[in-house]
Amino acid sequence: MKKSVFITGVYGFLGSWCADFFSASGFDVVGFGYASKKCQCSNLGALSGVVEGAVSARSLNDATERFGVPHALIHCAGGASVAFSYENPREDFLRTVGSTAEVLEFLRRHASVRLVYPSSVAVYGATERVPIVEAQSCAPVSPYGHHKHLAEQLCRAYAEEWKFPAAIVRFFSLYGEGLHKQLLWDACRKAARGNFSFFGAGDETRDWMSVRDAVRLTALAVEHAAPNCPTVNGGTGDGMRVKEMLTEIGRLFDPGLSPVFSGEAKPGDPATQLADVTRLRAWGFEPCVERRAGIAAYVAWFQQKFGEGSRCVA
Amino acid sequence: MKKSVFITGVYGFLGSWCADFFSASGFDVVGFGYASKKCQCSNLGALSGVVEGAVSARSLNDATERFGVPHALIHCAGGASVAFSYENPREDFLRTVGSTAEVLEFLRRHASVRLVYPSSVAVYGATERVPIVEAQSCAPVSPYGHHKHLAEQLCRAYAEEWKFPAAIVRFFSLYGEGLHKQLLWDACRKAARGNFSFFGAGDETRDWMSVRDAVRLTALAVEHAAPNCPTVNGGTGDGMRVKEMLTEIGRLFDPGLSPVFSGEAKPGDPATQLADVTRLRAWGFEPCVERRAGIAAYVAWFQQKFGEGSRCVA
Repeated sequence: MKKSVFITGVYGFLGSWCADFFSASGFDVVGFGYASKKCQCSNLGALSGVVEGAVSARSLNDATERFGVPHALIHCAGGASVAFSYENPREDFLRTVGSTAEVLEFLRRHASVRLVYPSSVAVYGATERVPIVEAQSCAPVSPYGHHKHLAEQLCRAYAEEWKFPAAIVRFFSLYGEGLHKQLLWDACRKAARGNFSFFGAGDETRDWMSVRDAVRLTALAVEHAAPNCPTVNGGTGDGMRVKEMLTEIGRLFDPGLSPVFSGEAKPGDPATQLADVTRLRAWGFEPCVERRAGIAAYVAWFQQKFGEGSRCVA
Repeated sequence: MKKSVFITGVYGFLGSWCADFFSASGFDVVGFGYASKKCQCSNLGALSGVVEGAVSARSLNDATERFGVPHALIHCAGGASVAFSYENPREDFLRTVGSTAEVLEFLRRHASVRLVYPSSVAVYGATERVPIVEAQSCAPVSPYGHHKHLAEQLCRAYAEEWKFPAAIVRFFSLYGEGLHKQLLWDACRKAARGNFSFFGAGDETRDWMSVRDAVRLTALAVEHAAPNCPTVNGGTGDGMRVKEMLTEIGRLFDPGLSPVFSGEAKPGDPATQLADVTRLRAWGFEPCVERRAGIAAYVAWFQQKFGEGSRCVA
């Protein structure tokens, strides 16, 4: 019998990529989520099973009766938008922290299952430190960041108390085909419309990681999971300015298309967000996707899906 | 129209004492809680209203339509037992963290309401520091302690974001009439049965505060509540050894009754838990209840309620 992996939030961006990756790696994949939130990128045809609805200790438990106790659980469910968390913090709390409490209730009774919790750079808050090390204190700013931080603490506390293996990956700026938000998405939409202008000066540096590397890292975190719940940055250690990123995207649409900036910097956005990757290197992890190739793949996906002649509307 | 106070967990130990205190201080008191969990000590006859069931943003909101927007909300609801939190962590999570998320969802829409969150010394964990200062890092041990710590962080984050006044009081060892658990309760039960023997050596020092002082401190915290959410220790700064406490209780039952100890120390219990009261003093707070008088009142309550001739069974 093949080993299986449970993935919560399986219809989301990272969840659906994890499903594809673990399935291609020879695991039976059982997904949990809301089909109505299905990310348009993934076919998810390779799933061995899907459990519709909110994740709960009970739904996870019931799934073990149908599919067996999994090797690992990747808890991708949770709030997915900083803006949403300001508008509806209680719902963001329930999605992120409430769902984690349910997952942990399941795990403390199935202590062989290896948990990976994909967290976020948002837990660090408005830090000035470059690069950001995992051991520094967390001071989240948004409700989204606070809730991710609380969920992390729950994971650590429960793994330690009930001795199940767990690991946390704090992803920085993920991108990849299927992502319908954030800078690359906005840039492609603007480029497609020919209005390539942006707020700010484009001087901020971000640590973009391809989702292809993110799923490899998630799989590696499964193997490193332990009751002391190691926590690593999910970044490349190699920053790129917003301006460079946008220039690259514009060029891919049209060699003559350059970004135009309003010049007003957005208050509250840190100038530089860069992962310290010492711990990642100690795990033996190196990103594989060269950034320009990753951006080109995203733009090609966007154009194929939403470009002229496509029936989709971006 | 009188000012009102909403009190969640109003049937519990601290909640019922708060209800009596605020009512006697001239407030209309609206309580929220489960009558089935009613603390036997309090009559709660002075309540202007009671809302039965789990506290939720909706039940709080509905209550404002019946009783008006309150001056303050004292959020006493939550898990109340370390042992229970190990047995049923999810339920403890929901009672403590889940209920706090509901309260905060209400408060962010009623930013004039002053929140006081009674927290616990358990958030500090197994610290060796004497006395314990509020600014030291928290490293809770039990699920109960972790959940209180998460609830504190939520209060702080939401108060700061939505600019409502809040304050946190980390109570150390509360005692008073109506408390049906912990050392004084166990000691009285044993004394009443004439078997006055205890585990350990009785050398641990604890910072016991009378619930009469705790409610005064809670009322003071209402006045000091602010969006930066000040956090103070709810202790006296004056420790007492378990051995002394038990000797005092034994003496009150029978001048010849002395505690007998097994001598084996319980692992994991910190030797000394003592509050640094610098912040409390800066608020102008001084405890009023002399400890021997407070113990005597407790023993008198126990004997009246559960002693020979009483119909209650301890």
